[in-house]
Amino acid sequence: MKITGIVSEYNPFHNGHKFHIEKTRKETSSDFIIAIMSGNFVQRGEPAIFDKWTRTKCALLNGVDMVIEIPLYFATASAEFFSECAVRIMDSTGIIDTISFGSEAGKIEYIEKVADILYNEPEEFKNIIKEELSKGIVFPSARSKALEKITHIPKDILENPNNILGIEYLKSLKKIKSNIKASTIKREQAHYNSKTIESTIASATAIREYIKQNQIQKALYAVPENCKRIYSENLNLGKSPVFADDLSHFLNYKIIMSSPEYISEISDITEGLENRIYKAISENYTFSQMCDFIKSKRYTYTKIQRALLHTVLDIKKSDTEEFIDNGFSQYIRVLGFRREASILLKEMSKKSKLPIITNIKNANSILNERGLKMLEKEIQSTDIYKALSPNKNFSQLKTEYSTPMVMI
Amino acid sequence: MKITGIVSEYNPFHNGHKFHIEKTRKETSSDFIIAIMSGNFVQRGEPAIFDKWTRTKCALLNGVDMVIEIPLYFATASAEFFSECAVRIMDSTGIIDTISFGSEAGKIEYIEKVADILYNEPEEFKNIIKEELSKGIVFPSARSKALEKITHIPKDILENPNNILGIEYLKSLKKIKSNIKASTIKREQAHYNSKTIESTIASATAIREYIKQNQIQKALYAVPENCKRIYSENLNLGKSPVFADDLSHFLNYKIIMSSPEYISEISDITEGLENRIYKAISENYTFSQMCDFIKSKRYTYTKIQRALLHTVLDIKKSDTEEFIDNGFSQYIRVLGFRREASILLKEMSKKSKLPIITNIKNANSILNERGLKMLEKEIQSTDIYKALSPNKNFSQLKTEYSTPMVMI
Repeated sequence: MKITGIVSEYNPFHNGHKFHIEKTRKETSSDFIIAIMSGNFVQRGEPAIFDKWTRTKCALLNGVDMVIEIPLYFATASAEFFSECAVRIMDSTGIIDTISFGSEAGKIEYIEKVADILYNEPEEFKNIIKEELSKGIVFPSARSKALEKITHIPKDILENPNNILGIEYLKSLKKIKSNIKASTIKREQAHYNSKTIESTIASATAIREYIKQNQIQKALYAVPENCKRIYSENLNLGKSPVFADDLSHFLNYKIIMSSPEYISEISDITEGLENRIYKAISENYTFSQMCDFIKSKRYTYTKIQRALLHTVLDIKKSDTEEFIDNGFSQYIRVLGFRREASILLKEMSKKSKLPIITNIKNANSILNERGLKMLEKEIQSTDIYKALSPNKNFSQLKTEYSTPMVMI
Repeated sequence: MKITGIVSEYNPFHNGHKFHIEKTRKETSSDFIIAIMSGNFVQRGEPAIFDKWTRTKCALLNGVDMVIEIPLYFATASAEFFSECAVRIMDSTGIIDTISFGSEAGKIEYIEKVADILYNEPEEFKNIIKEELSKGIVFPSARSKALEKITHIPKDILENPNNILGIEYLKSLKKIKSNIKASTIKREQAHYNSKTIESTIASATAIREYIKQNQIQKALYAVPENCKRIYSENLNLGKSPVFADDLSHFLNYKIIMSSPEYISEISDITEGLENRIYKAISENYTFSQMCDFIKSKRYTYTKIQRALLHTVLDIKKSDTEEFIDNGFSQYIRVLGFRREASILLKEMSKKSKLPIITNIKNANSILNERGLKMLEKEIQSTDIYKALSPNKNFSQLKTEYSTPMVMI
């Protein structure tokens, strides 16, 4: 039985994702595909446009057999920790043999080469970084310059977000000495950050942008037929869309009610970022205006967005570090599966290295204190997510308990 | 030099207040009148409709010589603690010799009589309360029945909000053995809670209601000429009005991000009120809808409103108790004064029993740790208040530092 894992956000699920799944199935001859997916908040530090149950359903309808949630603490972490958490979850299932990811590079050798250097950190590599840093550039730039010099792989390949993630997956696999093999599918057509929809393959960024501008028909052009109805219904009911700026009130309140000392303990608040936040000293900023204000050469926009999201969700460095020190995710939480693939659950329950949650009502008897702490933050963040729904009838608290796994 | 103190909210300042001040000045032959006034949040557990600087200015323009702030912790406390704090501040000034308040009773003897009984608690009084309680009625009702039986003062006088406050003032004066004398002015025409404006004398409730309904001209009918321009400008700029429901987002966020255990430590959250708050389990409630939902025979609406306001402002029982145990207000904060009355500041600086704050930039050198804690909550609550302004250009943080005392 060949089982492939895909790290995903599906924010939202679109034709490109479907294409990747189909191609993965063929190229890896997989019997089953398991998506390790972000929950209601995603890695760029914002709420997902549709909630996790909706995104799970769309994935299951289009070739994914099971969806496992990446816990909030890592779904919203930097690429490095996001990747390591996802890869560790895959490894913990005990049943995934291959990881597949899209990349512009398209060649696993490229990715392997870079991951090797980053994992082993040869002297030459460290020296070039030092040299570059002394010129006054930021660490990520120094690092990619060093990589370019050693590997001769062009910078634009090294800096492509999908390739970066791929590199991180491989690095993590090496680190945890996993037996999982890597495979990559060349991403074609739509560029990751492209903001227009030119064909039925478009970036998630473009689709979100069209939804933001209420150009729903245009947005739906790039999603599978069976998702169109789901998205439309979701939007019509006012469960979605949810955007970062919907967090503005909460962010302002949290900043007012906290001290800079407290904020400095929040995950991703580093190097005095708390001072820039308090320099923003103004309520007239939306979440994104606050990010714009704080942005500087020193901090990327997504780093700031993550820091502010963590501020709203009260995610502390000490907690994140505690989880990192204890194997990242404390459980495998199944968001949904295809009934035909129920053998996956059976196999996983035999081989998994972590407790498996299929119904959070049972969490108390399955998890230890640390696991419950991780899950409670998930439940709390879902309450926050629900509070952002355009239609306030969807904003009841503790719906995480009443929402069953998605089964199709 | 005869100096009279008036406990006030001036929410907003209107002709009735002006009338009271003028009559007080005549009847007590006062040289000066000092208002002890709530800041940005008031005793019924909601934001004041205009900010404290605006309300201070209006008071100074209409016969008040100096305005001293009642700290947030007690400006938003139950009538008992609100009154005791205000009276203690008056006493601490060392210069106020008389307290004047409006009452429907209009006779200081009535109020004295009741205050005496409440303060001394004679056996007869306690016995009637016991008897009444045994019939299954709540304590406030039992107490007012007992008072009625002993004093023969009609129940409607005993239960009138202004009379209740007057009684509390006198009780507090007795308790702290103050030399301050009491004087009352009979309130006429507009009833405390009347919601319509029939003449140039109207209740603050009615004026707020008209402003809420954007019937500004009607509202202004009941305010002094020199306030009309101030209120209009304030409303036109979008600094005001501010209402309880503007706190809805913050309240929901705070409830989501806290546990019932945490909420149970909030001031005025008593007898399991936290459970009713969590039963409200829904984001689709505004602040006032939440109050309506929680309201029951056991809790009055204003008690709940205060409890929810304290939740938003994170005012903990333990802190309030610490201040109560240490003399209530930790300082005398002057919000404004008439230049012609600057002798008041001079006299007060000689005779005051508490540190006097005229510029909070100097607070660090004047206050001890407890005083700074009290003041910091004031500054934080002003940030929250500003965040509620209709025009977000008025919502900068820490404006408390940049706003000088009002001097006219």
